[in-house]
Amino acid sequence: MNQERLAKVYESMKAEGIGQFLVTDPMAVYYLTGAMLNCGERMMVLLLAEGKEPKLIIGKLFPQDEETLGTKVIYFEDTDDYVGMLASEMSEDGVIGVDKVWPARFLLALMDKMPSAKFVNASYIIDHIRQIKTADEQEKMRAASACNDKSMGELIPLVVKGMTEKEMGEELLKIYLKNGAQGHSFDPIVAYGDNAADPHHEPDDSKGVYGNAVVLDIGCMKDGYCADMTRTVFIGKASDKAKEIYEVVKEANRRGIEAAKPGARFCDVDRAARDYIEEQGYGAYFTHRTGHNIGMEVHEYGDVSFTNENVLKPGMCFSVEPGIYIPGVAGVRIEDLVLITENGCEVLNHYTKDLIEVEV
Amino acid sequence: MNQERLAKVYESMKAEGIGQFLVTDPMAVYYLTGAMLNCGERMMVLLLAEGKEPKLIIGKLFPQDEETLGTKVIYFEDTDDYVGMLASEMSEDGVIGVDKVWPARFLLALMDKMPSAKFVNASYIIDHIRQIKTADEQEKMRAASACNDKSMGELIPLVVKGMTEKEMGEELLKIYLKNGAQGHSFDPIVAYGDNAADPHHEPDDSKGVYGNAVVLDIGCMKDGYCADMTRTVFIGKASDKAKEIYEVVKEANRRGIEAAKPGARFCDVDRAARDYIEEQGYGAYFTHRTGHNIGMEVHEYGDVSFTNENVLKPGMCFSVEPGIYIPGVAGVRIEDLVLITENGCEVLNHYTKDLIEVEV
Repeated sequence: MNQERLAKVYESMKAEGIGQFLVTDPMAVYYLTGAMLNCGERMMVLLLAEGKEPKLIIGKLFPQDEETLGTKVIYFEDTDDYVGMLASEMSEDGVIGVDKVWPARFLLALMDKMPSAKFVNASYIIDHIRQIKTADEQEKMRAASACNDKSMGELIPLVVKGMTEKEMGEELLKIYLKNGAQGHSFDPIVAYGDNAADPHHEPDDSKGVYGNAVVLDIGCMKDGYCADMTRTVFIGKASDKAKEIYEVVKEANRRGIEAAKPGARFCDVDRAARDYIEEQGYGAYFTHRTGHNIGMEVHEYGDVSFTNENVLKPGMCFSVEPGIYIPGVAGVRIEDLVLITENGCEVLNHYTKDLIEVEV
Repeated sequence: MNQERLAKVYESMKAEGIGQFLVTDPMAVYYLTGAMLNCGERMMVLLLAEGKEPKLIIGKLFPQDEETLGTKVIYFEDTDDYVGMLASEMSEDGVIGVDKVWPARFLLALMDKMPSAKFVNASYIIDHIRQIKTADEQEKMRAASACNDKSMGELIPLVVKGMTEKEMGEELLKIYLKNGAQGHSFDPIVAYGDNAADPHHEPDDSKGVYGNAVVLDIGCMKDGYCADMTRTVFIGKASDKAKEIYEVVKEANRRGIEAAKPGARFCDVDRAARDYIEEQGYGAYFTHRTGHNIGMEVHEYGDVSFTNENVLKPGMCFSVEPGIYIPGVAGVRIEDLVLITENGCEVLNHYTKDLIEVEV
């Protein structure tokens, strides 16, 4: 049990008036205990209540060491009334927080057993704590992005080698493993030509042709932390129109990063990038939010959207990834990760954003 | 929209007094609509209410064709109050069924908006319908298991080739693709020696040695349906004790299959296999249920356990997979899929269950 993190959770529970908290998201449990408990469809609950010992309720198939874990462990068999066992460890008084991902089959069964209890979604308690990366986590985020930068440099020359989008993804995995990462942090996007103009395209058997823009949205997983970066390069020559779009996106990315500092809001970062793209007349072609928080998971709580008025704080880490997608012309996205510092932000990616035309 | 399946759902909703049903499990939505809608963390709900047109509430990022789908489609943006939009399509009267997998973040938010509504887990409605395979589904289950039989025959000779457990899994994928399957239906278990004595072992870099039992628990995915079979073979020679255990498991598998017929209960199948293993003195080493239902997913609703008193009906398909696991001696599991017929059951696997000692 990470006592420092646990203390923050108890502090926040107290402030929010949440007496008991059922932590069930495996990543949240991992964040608090250091143990990755993937129990599939079976119930798994870390029950927190201030002043009481934490209790883990888990299937007998997943034996744990109480001492290592720092919690009491209560085992159930599949044939037990495990929701009843959980309820018997709880009190009906006060507000009970549950994790946002807890499946209805458990929540509804527990509500039946505790009819007078009040349940609320309390994931934000841990999500807010996870948003602020500690010094150790920051170091791991830097290392993952450094590996991603290096790997991007090795991937780009391959865009002219006649590989399909899927083959490019497979090559990237080999590059990541060679460079000391453990794998992809998400299914990479490699999109040639008109596929690049569809921001949700999934890699298929397409191959690139002369003049294509190639969107490379890639991330490695290294020592438990995620990288995520996008570069858009061209096969042979970029058209004049594509070059124009590229420079608009590059400047939008720069303005988003410039706006990322303590005291500003997530929406300010989004607006800085979006306003510029709109001013240049491409607003209709920037069809997604500007970014998302990242850490142990590639998408963590918090996004860089025009509706998110939460304030940026030192230690927060997120992507700045504006894009313009015009079918028949080009799709361009440029993405960096930034880490909020005391005065501004540190950009975790250092791979060049100058326009690259890869010689055929 | 599959009208026949939909009619069964409405019939069951009426019988159970469920006026509205929020279907959110992507596999359940696929079963009813034929469309696989994976929206990740975003809300996706197929709202059913008898006498009204089905409605799909889904993110704008996932455009659908209303006509193909056979439902009205209501789109939301990430910044919309999508739970409120859902609530506005619903009535607070009566009982509202929700899918067992629906995350707490949506369910609690909907409860807040509909304080007088009564919510229940209604997944069983579709689960019960899915339990009974139609003629077309039965044909696909047969074809997947035929492919699995053939592939097992090609995998077994490899146990003496010095491959690690992980490498065996990779070879199996190639075999499946060659034999016309689309891939694994689950991460295969290849377990040598003492690893085979741990029923939850995950393949690692272990290699087999002379005398090892090798548990091969494998399944392919073919045309949307899953296979799942286990055979245990030996490298070189099996010890006398291992042979004895093997024959006990084989007989338990036979007895389980013999008990699988319409009118019997799931627990009767479990007991038939379990009683025999207990009689032979190995009861303490058979540490899991005898089987699970299977179809479009490798684990579907319903299990072959001693607490499941539900009655077997023609069209149900499940595994019969007793095992005995004794560290330092051997781990043996033998698994077949069976399909309940009018008079008994059809065994979908035909690969031999005679003891196999693979020559080194």
